Order: sequence, then C-alpha cells, then structure tokens
Amino acid sequence: MAKKVKNNKRQLILDEAAKLFKAKGFGGTSMRDLGAQVGMEAASMYNHINSKDEILEIICFHVSDTYISQLAQIEQTQASYVDKIKALIHLHIRLMIEDGAAVSVANNDWKYLTADKLEAFKQARKNYEKGFAALIEQGIAAGELQPVNTSVALFTILSAVRWVELWYRPGRGITAEELEENIMTLLLNGLAK
Amino acid sequence: MAKKVKNNKRQLILDEAAKLFKAKGFGGTSMRDLGAQVGMEAASMYNHINSKDEILEIICFHVSDTYISQLAQIEQTQASYVDKIKALIHLHIRLMIEDGAAVSVANNDWKYLTADKLEAFKQARKNYEKGFAALIEQGIAAGELQPVNTSVALFTILSAVRWVELWYRPGRGITAEELEENIMTLLLNGLAK
Repeated sequence: MAKKVKNNKRQLILDEAAKLFKAKGFGGTSMRDLGAQVGMEAASMYNHINSKDEILEIICFHVSDTYISQLAQIEQTQASYVDKIKALIHLHIRLMIEDGAAVSVANNDWKYLTADKLEAFKQARKNYEKGFAALIEQGIAAGELQPVNTSVALFTILSAVRWVELWYRPGRGITAEELEENIMTLLLNGLAK
Repeated sequence: MAKKVKNNKRQLILDEAAKLFKAKGFGGTSMRDLGAQVGMEAASMYNHINSKDEILEIICFHVSDTYISQLAQIEQTQASYVDKIKALIHLHIRLMIEDGAAVSVANNDWKYLTADKLEAFKQARKNYEKGFAALIEQGIAAGELQPVNTSVALFTILSAVRWVELWYRPGRGITAEELEENIMTLLLNGLAK
C-alpha cells in the first residue's frame, strides 16, 4: 500500500512535469515550480525522483519505448502493409491524444537529455524511423503503396500528425475517432476524390 | 548605386539574421553575433536596421505577406479546387526550399514579436488559414475533395510539409521537383495504391 502511494506520487510528479515542460520548456521549469504544481516541497519530491534530468529521461524513454515496442508488435502481425502503416498512424494519434504532454516533451525537449541518454534516445528514434521506413519500402515492393521516396513518405506522415497534440481537445467539434478516421483518409487515400 | 549597396547590405543582414535565429533562436542571438556573421560593427548595422525587433518583424511579415498575396492570386484563378490546393502546397514547399531560414523564424520565433506586431501577425496567419480552409470547403462542396473535416485537412496539410525545411538540402538523393511531386502524391492521392 505504502509502495502504491509512492508510485502514484511518482506518476503524479512525472505527469505534472510533462505539462510544465510542455508549457514552459525544460529550461524554464524549476523543481520549485514542479513542487508548487504537485503540492510538495522540492525536498520531499526527491524521495520519488532523483533530479530534473531524470524526470526528462523517464518521460522521453517512456515515449520512445512505447513507439518501439508497438512497432515490434505490428511488424510481427500478418496484416497487409497498408494496415501495418495504419496501425502506426493510429499509435501516433492515440499517444498524442492520451499522453500529449509527454509526446510534446519527447518531440521538443529531448535535446536537453544528458550526453549518454541523448545518444541512446537519438539511436532509439533512428531505429524506430528505420523500422517504419522498412514497412513503407516493403509495402511499395509488394505493390500495395505508391512508389514514392521512402524518406519523403516517412517524414510526411510523421510530420502530418504532429499538430494533433497542439490542437486536439474535447469541444473541437470532432471526436478522437473521427479525427483519426479523417487523418487516415488523408494520408492513405489523399484529399482528392 | 549607393542606395543599391545599402539595400544589398540590408538584405544580407536580414538573410544572416534569419539563419542565426533559426540556429540559436531569437533570444539566443545578439546584435553582436549578427555583426560578426555579416562582418560589420553592431553600430554600423544600425545604418541599415533599427533593432533586432525590427529584423524579426521584417522576416515574419515577409513570409506571411508572401503566403497571403499568393493565396489571393490563386483564389482568383479559374483552376479546379484540387489545382488551387496543389498551388498552395507548391508555395509552401518552394518557400521552405528557397527561403527555409525565414520560414523557420516565422514558424517558431513569431511569438517574440512586439505586442502590436504580434497581434497583426496572428491575424495575418488566421486570415491565411481561413482562406486556405475556405478553398478546401468549397472543393468538398464541389465534390472534388473527400468529405473530411476542414480543419483536420488544413492542419494535416500545413503540418505535413513542415519537415521539408529541416530535412531538404542538395545531396539528399532527391531533387526539389521530385520531393514536391512525392508530397503532392501523398497528400492528394494518398500513400495507398
């Protein structure tokens, strides 16, 4: 029980840290700011977390680990390449809707990771992009996808969904499901009829 | 002749400022850095430019004015809606390839504009987005485009091309024309065959 409370507090610290980093940047957020946000003295936060650097590290690798483990699962399915790519787009959109602050931090503040973690994070991102690109390449080879440049397709897709994290919230007049369906239509079938 | 030299120097200052702002951010760039980059004393730069704020303003409004005047031209043509939207995507890609640093500054550093300029810039951007969205809406009504949510289509397109400014350079193994053609295929016809 005591452990569960401790874990909950740790998660609360991480969640609030992600929101603060997103709003004010990693450099613009102090442990004091974070303490005020979660209602704890900076000193007692250190019972749950070692440093601001560690918080950034946990958030960034939580996001990259999610992408990489999901990619590995998707690669192993027997689905068509179109469906595999749809599953990856679904993953990006869902993660932005459900965990937008963490995704924003992993997209924008990863450069403040300490040197060894920075290298590991860049390598993880590169591996993910390679895996995603390989699915596109195989889909083109299988005749399922348009014969476009693989890097162009990869970065257009990754970039195309990024605005969701900044824009989407309840009250936009569109459900998460409709949003996702619309983006799938645009990226897989195109805007033109 | 003296005037031409002066204008050239002014343009050089603006071009180098855009590159520095892109690399180090508006806040991270001093007039001294800029002077070193263009090979002029900070004091003599003030013969060409009033302030760092003014430089930012000129760069941001150069970009927004380009978008807005091109949109007005495109709106007046008799082309199909598909072709009008292709013309806008062409404009975004070209501006990123030919004037990438300025586009980057207008995308990322606009928030450092002084209060009245900031409002004017946000209004200009809103007007541009409204005009772009109206073309999508009319294209859907005319049956030329997929019946997707207009905001989703607008932001997906605007976001989808943003990576070009960060990625594209000669030596990527793809010409600017091929890059553009590939992105058009993806956004208008989709990745799936």
